[in-house]
Amino acid sequence: MALIVQKYGGTSVGSIERIQAVAAKVKAVQDSGDQIVVVVSAMSGETNRLVSLAKEIDYCPAPREMDVLLSTGEQVTIALLCMALHKMGCEARSFTGGQVQILTDNAHSKARIRGIEGIRVNADLQAGCVVVVAGFQGVDDQGNITTLGRGGSDTTAVAMAAALKADECQIFTDVNGVYTTDPRIEPKARKLDRITFEEMLEMASLGSKVLQIRAVEFAGKYNVPLRVLSSFEPGEGTLITFEDEGMEEAKISGIAFNRDEAKLTILGVPDQPGVAYSILGPVSNANIEVDMIIQNIAEDDTTDFTFTVHRNDYPKTLEILTETSGILGAREVIGDDSIVKVSLVGVGMRSHSGIASTMFEALAKEGINIRMISTSEIKISVVVDEKYLELGVRALHEAFALDEEPQ
Amino acid sequence: MALIVQKYGGTSVGSIERIQAVAAKVKAVQDSGDQIVVVVSAMSGETNRLVSLAKEIDYCPAPREMDVLLSTGEQVTIALLCMALHKMGCEARSFTGGQVQILTDNAHSKARIRGIEGIRVNADLQAGCVVVVAGFQGVDDQGNITTLGRGGSDTTAVAMAAALKADECQIFTDVNGVYTTDPRIEPKARKLDRITFEEMLEMASLGSKVLQIRAVEFAGKYNVPLRVLSSFEPGEGTLITFEDEGMEEAKISGIAFNRDEAKLTILGVPDQPGVAYSILGPVSNANIEVDMIIQNIAEDDTTDFTFTVHRNDYPKTLEILTETSGILGAREVIGDDSIVKVSLVGVGMRSHSGIASTMFEALAKEGINIRMISTSEIKISVVVDEKYLELGVRALHEAFALDEEPQ
Repeated sequence: MALIVQKYGGTSVGSIERIQAVAAKVKAVQDSGDQIVVVVSAMSGETNRLVSLAKEIDYCPAPREMDVLLSTGEQVTIALLCMALHKMGCEARSFTGGQVQILTDNAHSKARIRGIEGIRVNADLQAGCVVVVAGFQGVDDQGNITTLGRGGSDTTAVAMAAALKADECQIFTDVNGVYTTDPRIEPKARKLDRITFEEMLEMASLGSKVLQIRAVEFAGKYNVPLRVLSSFEPGEGTLITFEDEGMEEAKISGIAFNRDEAKLTILGVPDQPGVAYSILGPVSNANIEVDMIIQNIAEDDTTDFTFTVHRNDYPKTLEILTETSGILGAREVIGDDSIVKVSLVGVGMRSHSGIASTMFEALAKEGINIRMISTSEIKISVVVDEKYLELGVRALHEAFALDEEPQ
Repeated sequence: MALIVQKYGGTSVGSIERIQAVAAKVKAVQDSGDQIVVVVSAMSGETNRLVSLAKEIDYCPAPREMDVLLSTGEQVTIALLCMALHKMGCEARSFTGGQVQILTDNAHSKARIRGIEGIRVNADLQAGCVVVVAGFQGVDDQGNITTLGRGGSDTTAVAMAAALKADECQIFTDVNGVYTTDPRIEPKARKLDRITFEEMLEMASLGSKVLQIRAVEFAGKYNVPLRVLSSFEPGEGTLITFEDEGMEEAKISGIAFNRDEAKLTILGVPDQPGVAYSILGPVSNANIEVDMIIQNIAEDDTTDFTFTVHRNDYPKTLEILTETSGILGAREVIGDDSIVKVSLVGVGMRSHSGIASTMFEALAKEGINIRMISTSEIKISVVVDEKYLELGVRALHEAFALDEEPQ
C-alpha cells in the first residue's frame, strides 16, 4: 500500500463536471488500496473574480485581507470535491490550510511554509478516508490566514507529501509532462520520462514553467519523488527524482529559454575591490532581480561588467547604471533589450566533455552570434539576439538529437 | 467610551457600494471614540450561489462539507469590509469564526455556540482597531468548521457582545425596528421604541421574523442590550431589553400571527394516564413539531385532544394520528389546515386584568369565531379561520389602541 499525494490545479477543477472527473481519478487510487491526499486550487476564474471585487474597493488592498479573501477560493473547491467523492461512495474529509496546520511565515501573499503538523490527517488516512486539502494557503503562528502566492498549491502538495513521507507527489496540470523543449517552438520536442531535481530547477527557472520552482526545491530538499501528469490525457507524465542507476544516460535533458531578458554593460570601470557590489548594490536596492552576471578584465586596469535583468526592469536599470557609471568614473553604459537566453540543461554534462563546443558549433552553423555565455555544472546558457530564438532552439535540439529516445 | 457590536445582514452588504456604506457607518462610530466590533453575513445571493454549486453535485451533500463551503461567504465579506475601512483610513482586522474562537457543538448546519475566547480581539480593540468578524460560523472542539444555520449571524453578534461585555449589540436589518404588528396587514402599525426580551421572543416565534429567536434568547441570557435598526434609514430602531422603570406602560406590545398552521383533533380517546404521550409520541418521532396543545375532558370518561402543527406537516400528521386513533380506540380524528394563529403579546398582561375579555369581545364584534385558545403569562393566542387573519389583527390593533403612543 502506497501513500500518494495528488495536486489538481485551477483548470482541472474549473467546473462541476471537472471536479467530478477529478473525484473519479481519486476514487480509482483509493479503490486500488492506496492512501491518498488531494491538494486542490481554486476553480479557474474564481481567484480573478475575487481580485476584481477587491480592486473595486482599493487598487492596493492590505495583503492580510487579500489573503483572507483569496483563500476562500480553495475552500470552495475542497468542499465540492468531497461532496463529489461522497456521491461516488468514497469517504472524504476536507481541510483548509489552517486546519491541516500548514504553518508559514507572515509574509502575506507570498508566505513560505515552515512546517506541517500531519498527525490529524494521518488518523483520517488510517481510517480509509480521502483527505482533501486546500492548496495555496496556510496560517502564521498568530493564526492569521496566509497565501503562498500564485502556483503555491504545488508547494502545498509537496509539503504535505514531505510531512506524510508519501511515496509520490503527483502534480496534475494541463501539460502531460516535461519536454526536451517547448513543443510550440520545436514540434519534435520529446516528453521526458524522468528528469533530476537539479535539471528541473534549471528548466523551470529558465522558462519552462511547468512547476513552481519552490515546489521543486522543496521536493528536492525533502526527498519527495515528484511526478508531473496531465489532468486530461492518460499517461505516466514525467518523474522528477534524484539521480540513480535507472536514469537515462542522456548528456542533455532539454533546452530552456527565456524571452524576457535585457542586458546591460558598464564599460571601462576602474578595476578595484568592491566594484561588483558598487554596481549591483543600487540595482538590488531597487528590487530588481539580476540574472546572468559576467565580468571581463579589459585593457588598462579597467573592467567591463555585464548583467541581464527582466525586460520590464530595463529602463529603470539603465537609469540606475548611468548614475553609478558617473560615480565610478566608468567610460560608458550600453544595453540591449531585444535579447533572449537559451540554455542547455543536463546532469550528463558533468561527465561528458565537448558539450559546449558542440553547442557553439551548432549555433555558428546557423550564423547565430553569441552575445554572452554563462555556465554552471549542469547547464550552459547563451544570450543571443531575440530574432534567433526559434532557430537557435531547433538547431540545438537537432544537434543533441533530443527527439530520439536515449540509448 | 462604549463598546458597540454591530451586525449587518446579507442585504446590507449585498454589493461593493453597500459594503462601502457600511464602512462609513462603522467609521462614524470609531470616530466618535467608541470601540466597535462588526459582524457581517455573506453578500446577498452568495449563499444561494454556493448552495447551487453543491446541489449540482449532490442534492443532499454532507453537512460538514456544506459548512466548509458556505462559511466562505462571510469570509469574503469580512475581507472586503476591512479593505473598505482601510481605504477610509480606518484600522481594521478581519476574523473568521474559527479565528475568533467561536466554539460550537458539532451539529453541522445548525451548531450552537458554546463559548467565545475574546482575548485576542480585546487586544486589537485596545489598539484602536475595528474588529470585523464573520457571522454564522464557528468551529467545534476538533477544529471543524461549523455554521449556525440561517440567521446565525445575529447569534454571532450577540455572542461577541456577551463575551466582550459590550454596551450594546446593534442588529442592522432591512426593517427599521419592531412594530406592534405587520404593517403590511395593519398600516397603522406603530414602531416600538422598546420591547422586553420575553415579548420579543413571543413576537418572533409567532411570526414577526425580525430577529433570530436564538439570538434573542442568547441576549436575554447574557444580559446584552439588543437594538434592531435599519441599514438604509436613519432612526433609533427598537431596543430590546429587560423590564425596568423606564419601560412603556403598555399592557400590550404587539400582535403576532402565524399563517402556516393546521390543527388536528382526536375525539373520544379513553381518558387514562399517558394518553398525551401516546398521541404526541409518534408525531414527535416523525420529527414533526407541535405548537399549541389543548386537552378537554369530554363526557363519558373520554377526552378530546387538539394540537396544531406546521401546515406542511398536516398530511403526515393526519396519517399518524389516524393510526394512533385505531390503537387507542378513539372515536374519530378531524382536522383543518386552513386556520391561522393570532396572538396578543405584552408583559403588561401580568398586572392588568380584563385583557382576554377585551380580546374576545373585539373578535366577536367582527363575527370571528374562535376555534382554539391558549394562554401564557405574557400572551394570549387564538386560532381562527384563515380568512379572518387580516380582520382579526386590525380589530385587535384598534381595540388595544396600539397605533397610539402609550401614556
